[in-house]
Amino acid sequence: MKFIHTSDWHLGRQFHNVSLLEDQSAVLDQLIEYIAQHPVDAVVVAGDIFDRSVPPTAAVELLDQTVTRVCGELNTPMIIIPGNHDGAQRLGFGASQMKQAGLHIISNFKQMLEPVVLESEQAGQVAFYGMPYSDPEQVRFAFGADVKDYDQAHQVLVEEIKAHLQHAQKNVLLSHCFVDGGESSDSERPLSIGGSDRVSADHFRCFDYVALGHLHQPQQRSEAHIRYSGSLMKYSFSEQHQKKGFTLVTLDQNGFANAEHVALKAPREMRVLEGELDDIIARGKTDPNADDYLLVRLLDKHAILNPMDKLRAVYPNVLHLEKPGMLIGVEQQMAQAKLARSEVDMFRDFFREAQESELSSAQDQALSAIVKDLLKQ
Amino acid sequence: MKFIHTSDWHLGRQFHNVSLLEDQSAVLDQLIEYIAQHPVDAVVVAGDIFDRSVPPTAAVELLDQTVTRVCGELNTPMIIIPGNHDGAQRLGFGASQMKQAGLHIISNFKQMLEPVVLESEQAGQVAFYGMPYSDPEQVRFAFGADVKDYDQAHQVLVEEIKAHLQHAQKNVLLSHCFVDGGESSDSERPLSIGGSDRVSADHFRCFDYVALGHLHQPQQRSEAHIRYSGSLMKYSFSEQHQKKGFTLVTLDQNGFANAEHVALKAPREMRVLEGELDDIIARGKTDPNADDYLLVRLLDKHAILNPMDKLRAVYPNVLHLEKPGMLIGVEQQMAQAKLARSEVDMFRDFFREAQESELSSAQDQALSAIVKDLLKQ
Repeated sequence: MKFIHTSDWHLGRQFHNVSLLEDQSAVLDQLIEYIAQHPVDAVVVAGDIFDRSVPPTAAVELLDQTVTRVCGELNTPMIIIPGNHDGAQRLGFGASQMKQAGLHIISNFKQMLEPVVLESEQAGQVAFYGMPYSDPEQVRFAFGADVKDYDQAHQVLVEEIKAHLQHAQKNVLLSHCFVDGGESSDSERPLSIGGSDRVSADHFRCFDYVALGHLHQPQQRSEAHIRYSGSLMKYSFSEQHQKKGFTLVTLDQNGFANAEHVALKAPREMRVLEGELDDIIARGKTDPNADDYLLVRLLDKHAILNPMDKLRAVYPNVLHLEKPGMLIGVEQQMAQAKLARSEVDMFRDFFREAQESELSSAQDQALSAIVKDLLKQ
Repeated sequence: MKFIHTSDWHLGRQFHNVSLLEDQSAVLDQLIEYIAQHPVDAVVVAGDIFDRSVPPTAAVELLDQTVTRVCGELNTPMIIIPGNHDGAQRLGFGASQMKQAGLHIISNFKQMLEPVVLESEQAGQVAFYGMPYSDPEQVRFAFGADVKDYDQAHQVLVEEIKAHLQHAQKNVLLSHCFVDGGESSDSERPLSIGGSDRVSADHFRCFDYVALGHLHQPQQRSEAHIRYSGSLMKYSFSEQHQKKGFTLVTLDQNGFANAEHVALKAPREMRVLEGELDDIIARGKTDPNADDYLLVRLLDKHAILNPMDKLRAVYPNVLHLEKPGMLIGVEQQMAQAKLARSEVDMFRDFFREAQESELSSAQDQALSAIVKDLLKQ
């Protein structure tokens, strides 16, 4: 049995105030074309299908077209869980009506325990369990479990699923979380502050495959069958060298057999260009990919009038400009330094806001000691 | 064949800053209970299922539960069109995946021409055509038709449907519009300003039944088979004496046979109470429906300290207070008079905003003459 593992589509995302919907649509076309050419048994999407809980109408329409082509025209079941960017209840509307048509949206804990079972010659029955994205609070409330962090919450959820596993079946889990040690990117929204969002890969070992979402870089965690597919496309300049696409998973009679990264190519890449203005403009005149989304770092030492206009004459999609080489850069750096307040400063600000008074000097000393201790760890 | 015609649920509506969701849920329970006791062949909802294009999550969940009970548990197909309050594209997500489960959401012109055909012993095949709410602009764009107003737009849409009608079938139309001569209520949002939203009932005669939505009072237009079911419940105090519920429609081998209003009772009524404070409070102490939503008109002639608090001690859901009997009322009336600007004044304001200059005296005279003429008609 072969299935596609993908995640983090973030449909409707804006990037430096530019809508990426057209690019997302082009990449999804490639995904659909792949399925048309190389039929698979299922497509699983491990969360963050939309970029926000109330997505723009055009993003809803793009997802509608995509599921109609995959489930309808290509007759390929899709299994979707919400991520931290999605609104689970909204995404879950009509879920029970859609199941018959092969669209399975798993958006609550009840549905989590009712796997989607698909039959295959090579691997027999394969049960897909979807764990909708959930924070410790939701797990505490739903299961009356005393959980303090994401790790304990996911342990409870996995235990619930384990009680339902049928060992004659192969078992696949979809989960949207931050597995400990994973490599993060700039375009992910933190699940919580301070590291309490990390989940141990140990919980996941018992499944034949774990399709993870949240981290935007494709990667395996701890074992070859516990993987992030990475995001549909690049969502920050820091991802310029990351591979983007989906993971093609093969299961056989022994369970996990293989995972292969299949590349998808966005019509416009995200790139960083560094150099002096004249050089960059000269390069741009013959650059075949001049409409890529660009961050330009100008190294010129002197002031330049309207650099953005000049750059956009050859690179129309310059989205951000940095001028580390110019004098004005010094001021920028000073401003940034001012912004980069220490943890102690930030807590002082917070205390002032919340308590409408200053920390006493004893409190201040205690705070400094605690922060110092924490930063040492 | 029997089906339920309902419309204007406005799920998620606020009334004087109070959420009506709990009341809406209770009324929908009655509708579902009715179907459980008296099975029908279909439920048609003629628009304004939500109160706004991006409904609150809890309203989405209520609709999800309702369709799961009606289509799933009671195995009764539902046919839904968006109204002017709904966001058609959002409401239409997953429409093609939901059809197999008996949930038919008709949210674009393509789907309008693909009727939902249901079979019945008494009336043979019945084709349900849904006309998603659309303004003249949308019809102009979609059909390249030169239409100036809602009447012409609906004529074009009906002609499109007529070209698809199969005369061996009975034909039912769902439409969300303002049929000329209809009686409106305070809780409907005007489709356009100045009467250009009226649609002639003549277009609709050729159908066996026309299930209309938009007007909140149940009523027939022109012929017995062209009807508004009215809204699910009262949405303004001016509707205090209106009947609310749904229309039970019967078709037989000759087409339309009968339409019957079936009442639904909201847990809290909307009522207007008029009288002096002491009398109203005395009445309230023994009023079995003291938790109704109330507008209170105090007729006392003297000033009263905190009348709202005193009233809410017996009537907890007093939502609005008018004091026409008090001195303060005079000021209120003056303020209202100031607000009630004449048509000429309003046009002068508009001209000033749009043109950044005043009307010339010749323009002003011409305007006054035109408005006088129009108001005479």
